[in-house]
Amino acid sequence: MPFFSQTVEHIRSSEIRELMKLATRPDVISFAGGMPNNNMFPVKEVDEIMQNMDPEEKKIAFQYGPTPGYPLLLETLKEYLRSKNLPVDTHSLMITTGSLQAINILGMEFIDPGDVVLTENPSFIGGIAVFKAFQANIIGIPLQNDGLDLESLEKVLEKYHPKILYVIPNFHNPAGIIYSKEKRRKLLDLLEGKGIILLEDDAYNELYFNQKSKELTAPMMSMDYKDIDIVYTGSFSKILGPGLRLGWMLAPPEIYEKAQIIKQGIDACSPNFTQVIANDFIKKGYLEQYLNRIRKEYANRKDLMQAALKKYMPKEVYWHEPSGGFYFWLHLPEDIDSTNILKRSVKNGAVFVTGKTFDPNANKNNALRLAYSNMEKAQIDEGIKIISDAILEEIKNIQKKAFIQISK
Amino acid sequence: MPFFSQTVEHIRSSEIRELMKLATRPDVISFAGGMPNNNMFPVKEVDEIMQNMDPEEKKIAFQYGPTPGYPLLLETLKEYLRSKNLPVDTHSLMITTGSLQAINILGMEFIDPGDVVLTENPSFIGGIAVFKAFQANIIGIPLQNDGLDLESLEKVLEKYHPKILYVIPNFHNPAGIIYSKEKRRKLLDLLEGKGIILLEDDAYNELYFNQKSKELTAPMMSMDYKDIDIVYTGSFSKILGPGLRLGWMLAPPEIYEKAQIIKQGIDACSPNFTQVIANDFIKKGYLEQYLNRIRKEYANRKDLMQAALKKYMPKEVYWHEPSGGFYFWLHLPEDIDSTNILKRSVKNGAVFVTGKTFDPNANKNNALRLAYSNMEKAQIDEGIKIISDAILEEIKNIQKKAFIQISK
Repeated sequence: MPFFSQTVEHIRSSEIRELMKLATRPDVISFAGGMPNNNMFPVKEVDEIMQNMDPEEKKIAFQYGPTPGYPLLLETLKEYLRSKNLPVDTHSLMITTGSLQAINILGMEFIDPGDVVLTENPSFIGGIAVFKAFQANIIGIPLQNDGLDLESLEKVLEKYHPKILYVIPNFHNPAGIIYSKEKRRKLLDLLEGKGIILLEDDAYNELYFNQKSKELTAPMMSMDYKDIDIVYTGSFSKILGPGLRLGWMLAPPEIYEKAQIIKQGIDACSPNFTQVIANDFIKKGYLEQYLNRIRKEYANRKDLMQAALKKYMPKEVYWHEPSGGFYFWLHLPEDIDSTNILKRSVKNGAVFVTGKTFDPNANKNNALRLAYSNMEKAQIDEGIKIISDAILEEIKNIQKKAFIQISK
Repeated sequence: MPFFSQTVEHIRSSEIRELMKLATRPDVISFAGGMPNNNMFPVKEVDEIMQNMDPEEKKIAFQYGPTPGYPLLLETLKEYLRSKNLPVDTHSLMITTGSLQAINILGMEFIDPGDVVLTENPSFIGGIAVFKAFQANIIGIPLQNDGLDLESLEKVLEKYHPKILYVIPNFHNPAGIIYSKEKRRKLLDLLEGKGIILLEDDAYNELYFNQKSKELTAPMMSMDYKDIDIVYTGSFSKILGPGLRLGWMLAPPEIYEKAQIIKQGIDACSPNFTQVIANDFIKKGYLEQYLNRIRKEYANRKDLMQAALKKYMPKEVYWHEPSGGFYFWLHLPEDIDSTNILKRSVKNGAVFVTGKTFDPNANKNNALRLAYSNMEKAQIDEGIKIISDAILEEIKNIQKKAFIQISK
């Protein structure tokens, strides 16, 4: 049986599948899915775009396009990325079918079975799945509130020769943190000249809640380091809609060259139909007004969840209040298993994703992820109470067991 | 370097890339690209669909969808496939990002390096690229005017234990032929009980030019054979537009189960935005009227090319007149190299794709593919004359060389 077939079974345990099923049950409050809000999409703007589209552009929308992307979108996107000081003139840009495809392509291009790949721990499940599929030996580097634990990283860099380091510096999924400026600089100092590819996943770049966090979002690729191959990925999923299946990859020319040949064999090109729309969406200035709208909404949701967490969570639980993105990451006491909490809270009508789902080695489970992006706002308080109660019960249960153990 | 990276370089030679560049030069008549006609897309119908779309459906268009596909499209597509007697109730249906993705997924699921995969020779370049990417040992079985050469196939089946046989029975790309009923039956008789997966690529199913060829298009999967695992793939590229990037895969449940897990790790889901449109396109009855329109147009183009070929081609060249699809496949004398012809005809302003491009072992080059789907109709006569002249010159050149050889 081919490797891919074996490994994916490992990744998507039946537990996750069960959870997915529950998460979509209408009577359950779901903090599980990391998707944008259903009622916030720029439907009007895209209607407007479709109604006023140039007839020649419409034809293009239906046809095959060049593998690297619809040329006008590439130009528009370059302008947008240039405004973030990204090196669009020395590096090459490619549209991908979601930014997950960019990770897949890099995996195909660079990972041989057994190669060491470094990720944050916790990390994005989609990224972990790709690296496992290519039979990488994944080492998770602990994530702190301001970014990677650099001491751990340094030790691993010395001992192994990792091919790729995969990071999500802005509004991390699942950890909800943002890297400090200092951490970014130190990380780049550490990596420079080491021959490792830094894969910078910036899907949440635009979803900051305040000026301070906005300033922190400057990509590492925009910093002035010469001797590091950085591949930068972004996505239209959070700034327009995941249903368009569009992401991008900005990479050094030699990495890009092979990447586009690989993409040719995967899906020939990304959907022209949605690329044409994405281009107009930026060109016509809809992006910024849409972003202002959703930043406010998600900040408000974050506030509601923060308030509920403070109101209900047992004192043993701690978390870092996010300054952007979709997620709270709850740290639970060492001996607590979030799967047990999930079982309890599902019964009472609330779901989330367990910590080990985001651990590349599927180990560490005294944590959990709460997304505040896509449930009814009015349900946040109720749902957090259910989960808090479940945690409290589980803590009591553990203490009782410990007591019985001692009494014996 | 990982295998994928190595093999794709092999596949996409610089020659093909040069050709691709030429093929898009505005002053060159291109019979190269196998794409639908730019001016035939159902733009009006899709405008209509977008303008009248239900607001709730619009939201769905922007959001992530289930990995196997947008549920309403799956239902609609099942109805459509049921009308072709395909076993949609005992088999499982999945939407893919183009039908090339379905082949990719099957590759991931079944092919270990060195496994024997059988294709027709010639075969679809995208399929060949996928199998090479997974390091299959590809054996090409000669294609005749009514389908595979079954004697060759039988010998190969005895000698090797191929995992997959990949065929395009209807309006073959590049060969332009359609399998006879008898050939289909004999092929299935031969494969039954052999444990090989039959991958039936039916991208051109609807593009028949007459009643007789329509009747021939009945998929092998609709025939009553029990002991063969058939995976059937189809595409919206030829019946709506490739820019939507939508295809499908109908497979036995156990193959489907793993396939959808693999797809989850590739792109999570296909674009909901275009799936919603494809669903309405069928539901509202636009498909059949659109198909009637394009069948007429492509039949007319085929007639024009057939007339030009008869008018200009040297007697040494033969071909089978297609009864559907996009392609003529020209057989040249044994000692003629179609790359030389391409070089000659490019200079005079016409391009096509050389024969060896479609040979899994990139060998046999005394053939070439002419697509009639997407150039100006008025250019067909002129373009065919250019290519005919180039062939004639090349034949003369070879004869001269042979004469000099003999004289020496």
